[in-house]
Amino acid sequence: MPLDHEDTATPAEDFRDGGEASLSREFVLDVEGAIALGDAERVHELVGDLHEADLGALLELLSHEARPRLVELMGADFDFTALMEVGEATREDILEELPVETLIEGVRELESDDAVAILEGLEPKEQAEVLDALPAQERIVLRRSLDYPEDSAGRLMQTTFVAAPPFWTAGRVLDFFRECGEENLPENFFEVFVVDPGYHLLGTVFLDALVRARSSVRLDEIMQEDRRRVKATEDGAEAARLFERYNLVSVPVVDESERLVGVLTIDDIVDVLQEQASDEILALGGVNPEEELTDNFWWIARSRFTWLSVNMLTAFITSSVLKHFQLQLEQMVALAVLGPIVAGQGGNSATQTMTVAVRALATRELTRANAVRIIFRELAIGAVNGAAFGLVTGIVAANWFHNVGLGPVIALAMFTNLVAGALGGIVVPLAFDKLKFDPAVASGPFVTTITDVVGYGAFLTIASLWFHLG
Amino acid sequence: MPLDHEDTATPAEDFRDGGEASLSREFVLDVEGAIALGDAERVHELVGDLHEADLGALLELLSHEARPRLVELMGADFDFTALMEVGEATREDILEELPVETLIEGVRELESDDAVAILEGLEPKEQAEVLDALPAQERIVLRRSLDYPEDSAGRLMQTTFVAAPPFWTAGRVLDFFRECGEENLPENFFEVFVVDPGYHLLGTVFLDALVRARSSVRLDEIMQEDRRRVKATEDGAEAARLFERYNLVSVPVVDESERLVGVLTIDDIVDVLQEQASDEILALGGVNPEEELTDNFWWIARSRFTWLSVNMLTAFITSSVLKHFQLQLEQMVALAVLGPIVAGQGGNSATQTMTVAVRALATRELTRANAVRIIFRELAIGAVNGAAFGLVTGIVAANWFHNVGLGPVIALAMFTNLVAGALGGIVVPLAFDKLKFDPAVASGPFVTTITDVVGYGAFLTIASLWFHLG
Repeated sequence: MPLDHEDTATPAEDFRDGGEASLSREFVLDVEGAIALGDAERVHELVGDLHEADLGALLELLSHEARPRLVELMGADFDFTALMEVGEATREDILEELPVETLIEGVRELESDDAVAILEGLEPKEQAEVLDALPAQERIVLRRSLDYPEDSAGRLMQTTFVAAPPFWTAGRVLDFFRECGEENLPENFFEVFVVDPGYHLLGTVFLDALVRARSSVRLDEIMQEDRRRVKATEDGAEAARLFERYNLVSVPVVDESERLVGVLTIDDIVDVLQEQASDEILALGGVNPEEELTDNFWWIARSRFTWLSVNMLTAFITSSVLKHFQLQLEQMVALAVLGPIVAGQGGNSATQTMTVAVRALATRELTRANAVRIIFRELAIGAVNGAAFGLVTGIVAANWFHNVGLGPVIALAMFTNLVAGALGGIVVPLAFDKLKFDPAVASGPFVTTITDVVGYGAFLTIASLWFHLG
Repeated sequence: MPLDHEDTATPAEDFRDGGEASLSREFVLDVEGAIALGDAERVHELVGDLHEADLGALLELLSHEARPRLVELMGADFDFTALMEVGEATREDILEELPVETLIEGVRELESDDAVAILEGLEPKEQAEVLDALPAQERIVLRRSLDYPEDSAGRLMQTTFVAAPPFWTAGRVLDFFRECGEENLPENFFEVFVVDPGYHLLGTVFLDALVRARSSVRLDEIMQEDRRRVKATEDGAEAARLFERYNLVSVPVVDESERLVGVLTIDDIVDVLQEQASDEILALGGVNPEEELTDNFWWIARSRFTWLSVNMLTAFITSSVLKHFQLQLEQMVALAVLGPIVAGQGGNSATQTMTVAVRALATRELTRANAVRIIFRELAIGAVNGAAFGLVTGIVAANWFHNVGLGPVIALAMFTNLVAGALGGIVVPLAFDKLKFDPAVASGPFVTTITDVVGYGAFLTIASLWFHLG
């Protein structure tokens, strides 16, 4: 049956408003139904025209069992690039279930960077089988990429690129492109790299510079001799920072001997940047960033448990402070009622400071050059807000318990705790950063321990002195 | 004095390791010294060869006073694109101090999207003066961009682009580029837009497709008829999502009548994406995202105060629960000592769930299609960890206070609170999202109120029943 475009219009085709396609619940149910029935024709009808990104989103929404079934039903028509658009967990879910022949077919049709991402997700035995089935030239290139460390530029890079000697003219390059034909050029490219006979990078000619040059101009006359490049062994996150800072669209990747081995493009880097942001957010919330990659219930529960255990210890430290003042609490139960306000407000204020500090460290806006200025600014903010909240809490507490003395006591404790929290909120992340620990992961429990201990400690000490307790 | 490259090598020139340049403290001090002395020659020597991104980073590190002085000392050699690389606060700092003549010169040399960003930062009177001094054609284009809402695609877009009719051949386009010369083409471009006589977009030919086509091929034979486009009035954040989802490098911008008016490129979008991530992180930490844009101490203090006030209210709610159990606390002070452990652990556990939920909502991984599944998963994790921490805390508490009954009491309270926290941590962000409030901003205080009230409430109620208190 020939595909009828009117009939097979999916929600993914409507971009008139520039919005992304959202896969409707009905559409997903339709696909699930067709998969359950093993109706390959209907699956083709529904899914055949989807953009790879929408196909990826669809795969995420399907059940574990349905995912590999969809790939099988699509057969040779399945677009393997869709596997680049799903999370690692979903990808491995699918790859696990696919026969080696399907994998070989899939890897063969992918660009080198995507092929590497697929191969990474395979068991060593399957990886070897797939590699062995590929033509020697492809195999060598993919093996070399896989030899680079995980998350390195070498894994992310595209190994097909266009390089030419410096004495070629613009006209000659254009003739070369036309003769070359589709298969021998990368699917998408932005530039021609100018290299010497040893493949050392001399410069870059972007396509827009190439097309506006006269035919007789030599490449070395129009190339940009930008020295920005990335080592293949370097971490992808470092490369991402370079893209971000210098607004790059692509950057050459070189090996240890400065030979050109690939190119990193912005679309891969956007994913790295987004992942970094996710990791920072999750770490600040006390969640292991790896969690997003797994659906394994017990793994998640255990990972959350680990971080909560650290907090448990800090909670017992706080309780020890309270236990130390047991006598005073018995004598004046209002202290037990009001204590959490002092501790909690300090914790929230310190969390504000800490969040600003962690973010500024990540974006490199907080450096040694301005750290002292920012520490003083945060201390001043802590003092101002400490005074303000001290005043408010003092008035409320004194009236609530009909005890005038409680006013100045809680006000002073509040002021002390907000200043201490401000100091802890900025110094702790700075210290972790200096010690090369990720401040987003480590700062939280430390900072709240400070505000809990100082909050309860200051409040109960000041109260004991004022009211002559204990 | 001719510039000697050996002498003026700045740290910014070393990219051999692919790392970004870090401006050394010594270098910044040198620049500051030269500015203080008004030594234009020395400033040129030090700063003249800096990349715009590094010049921007340098401006951020200088004092308020030194920033506009640097621009003046550099005169016509100052690269205005550096102002795109600094925060809004710094940019306005500088623009405020610059004479209108300098501004006019600067705006004239910028690409349209950057010029719009500069004009946005000016006072209405100055903006009009600068616009009036520009050639009519530029003025009209910039005015139109400024008419679009703030942060819209129309403000971010580049208004110079290459468009051609569908019947032009690849060869004719290449000839056109060569005849056109530098000035009449955009500084960087990736594609030729194919338009009808009314400037309606028919398709796109990327340069790599153009250069591999035979000269006689018509554009409409090689163009991609992708319907993805962005309305100029649309929010930049929506456009960013499109780029991210479909790995785009550029996207056409159309006006209300579907006419091509500009192009959005990935380098602008990367900034939007990074800003979104920053906003989410700061919001989760209880910080107003606008804060990063200002150095105004009182503004920051007041903005932090506002959010802390909300938390203050929730702290008093918690205290009211404690006050309700005043009698029981007096009878058994151990409850006052242990209560914060139950409340705190519930709060931390709920924050984990909330962070995962907020992130998944932002990345659209959490949708109506899988919400129920995720709610049950979080409840199960809360129950498992509640049971585990209940057991541990129970054993510790019973031994610490030599009171066997405290064991089951705190264990049951802990379990209850972690389950309640899990429910709150996922349902609260989902509810805010549904009500079109930003869940990152609003969820925190709600969720911790739940765990505080349930934590203290459950612990003290169970204890009262078990020990027959009150």
